[in-house]
Amino acid sequence: MRLLPFALAGAALALPVSLMAEEARPIAAPSPGQIVEGAPKADWVRIAPTDLLVMDLAPGPRGARRVVIQLMPPPFSQGWVGNVRKLAAAHWWDGLSVYRVQDNYVAQWGDAEGEDPKRAKALPGGLAEVPESAYIQPATDCSPLEHNCQGPMPPLTAYQRQTSPDRYAESTGYFRGWPVAYDAKSSWPTHCYAMVGVARDLSPNTGSGAELYTVIGHAPRQLDRNIALIGRVIEGIELLSSLPRGTGAAGFYEKAEERTPIVSVRLGTEAAGHAAYEYLSTESESFARYAAARANRRDPFFIAPAGGADICNIPVPVRRVKG
Amino acid sequence: MRLLPFALAGAALALPVSLMAEEARPIAAPSPGQIVEGAPKADWVRIAPTDLLVMDLAPGPRGARRVVIQLMPPPFSQGWVGNVRKLAAAHWWDGLSVYRVQDNYVAQWGDAEGEDPKRAKALPGGLAEVPESAYIQPATDCSPLEHNCQGPMPPLTAYQRQTSPDRYAESTGYFRGWPVAYDAKSSWPTHCYAMVGVARDLSPNTGSGAELYTVIGHAPRQLDRNIALIGRVIEGIELLSSLPRGTGAAGFYEKAEERTPIVSVRLGTEAAGHAAYEYLSTESESFARYAAARANRRDPFFIAPAGGADICNIPVPVRRVKG
Repeated sequence: MRLLPFALAGAALALPVSLMAEEARPIAAPSPGQIVEGAPKADWVRIAPTDLLVMDLAPGPRGARRVVIQLMPPPFSQGWVGNVRKLAAAHWWDGLSVYRVQDNYVAQWGDAEGEDPKRAKALPGGLAEVPESAYIQPATDCSPLEHNCQGPMPPLTAYQRQTSPDRYAESTGYFRGWPVAYDAKSSWPTHCYAMVGVARDLSPNTGSGAELYTVIGHAPRQLDRNIALIGRVIEGIELLSSLPRGTGAAGFYEKAEERTPIVSVRLGTEAAGHAAYEYLSTESESFARYAAARANRRDPFFIAPAGGADICNIPVPVRRVKG
Repeated sequence: MRLLPFALAGAALALPVSLMAEEARPIAAPSPGQIVEGAPKADWVRIAPTDLLVMDLAPGPRGARRVVIQLMPPPFSQGWVGNVRKLAAAHWWDGLSVYRVQDNYVAQWGDAEGEDPKRAKALPGGLAEVPESAYIQPATDCSPLEHNCQGPMPPLTAYQRQTSPDRYAESTGYFRGWPVAYDAKSSWPTHCYAMVGVARDLSPNTGSGAELYTVIGHAPRQLDRNIALIGRVIEGIELLSSLPRGTGAAGFYEKAEERTPIVSVRLGTEAAGHAAYEYLSTESESFARYAAARANRRDPFFIAPAGGADICNIPVPVRRVKG
């Protein structure tokens, strides 16, 4: 009786939507998890240590608490990503804290005293001031779910508009392992669960990257194109999402002792003993099958395949591998 | 620098989407929260104590832990809702536990030993076996976002299909305070954050209602029409969403001592000292303005209104009131 809902179960058959209604019962097929497990080695892409950010929190009731973040590749958010690299190289976050946890929204970390000029920790030199225009990129070789990533993105077809409905953009897809939204002119990363963004003050401030947050609830896609995303948590998100919620306005902790201390944040090239990771290439046949299975679950548990899935409900698989 | 992303901020102007691209900067306007705060008393609907389920967990580090659930009204899921009322009246959950917490998915409670016939707690008599056909309802007077709820739902217009894209259904809307999806023939409640569902075994089992879960991550809409939803957590969801994640498969706790004990579950008519609640009528003008503001944030923080919002990103406002 307590088997389900079961995220490990699931199944895939990329049947056209029009066929689904005619089936009394779905055909059992591999689950999304089984497709990922069966993906050939060639479909996985190693994440370079230079693209990892390793955050060690103070130990908790269960022991060590390590959060690993993958930084976004070009062309997205590179001004902020550059700042984050500088802040990590300067060991700037060491001794700071997770100071805000708002239910169904974000966990945020950095300098809890950052808004008080007298108490704020000085930032390292050389950080870029990135303009708002960098929240989006010109349309490039983004890959909608249905198509491989081959050169500059053509204008959306009527078919694409029909098959890729999205409340927040003309369409969505994956770009080199990352969820993106786009229209005919531009593309931008999307605020899915565990994505990491740059907190900021009012416009035209865009944030330096010193104050970061991660999404711990339903995707707040209204933040797309309004805040820079610099990466995603690929391990340890549960260490942030299960923290006690702050009782102050917007989930800020009211007492300093409620904050979770940050011991250190290091780039993968400097962090001691971190794991190695791979993501499933979003241009691979395996990913296409996995995404189709997420959109139409056909394992024995499911009786009504959905016929689709939103971009944030098809997370890009990431796995640990031997270094 | 740490102001945002700020869920309390926001703004509303129900401009057509076509106008948005021409604006260099949005016009500051009331936030969704301000619209809700300003809604007249007449736009709020009292939740009857007969529709409340009050779950007291064992006290935690911060003291008492009370979770309040609102049960779904007709016509949805009434067979299961009836079972839940019987289970609460029999005090069946007293002494059981929250035994599964899976990150970005669900927290689940009931009888952790329910799968072992020798150790399972006996269910009260008189529970209904509800058929799978009850996962959906014939199309009724559902209210898509753009229209009030007036009699039987007409077939979807081309305009509705165009303005209400959804990955999981032909359209979405609100029915007497609840998020629903629908097509021309049927409608069903949606798996949004904090919705409460009935765990079950493989089809044709539909679950009794004894084992319940609530959504604590991005909306797993693939479960729509596959599992019964019986209500939503209207207070205390953070007490479930911040529990430590289970380290067993699918987030089950591996050790009994990791479970969170349930002291009691009572219907509102029997629970001692519970609060009273109201929800914002989804047929009200205030709700229409609130939803439009969620879809197009225009307070000073936002520089690019999204132009839309998915059904699970427009939660129905609920507030405590004096009993």
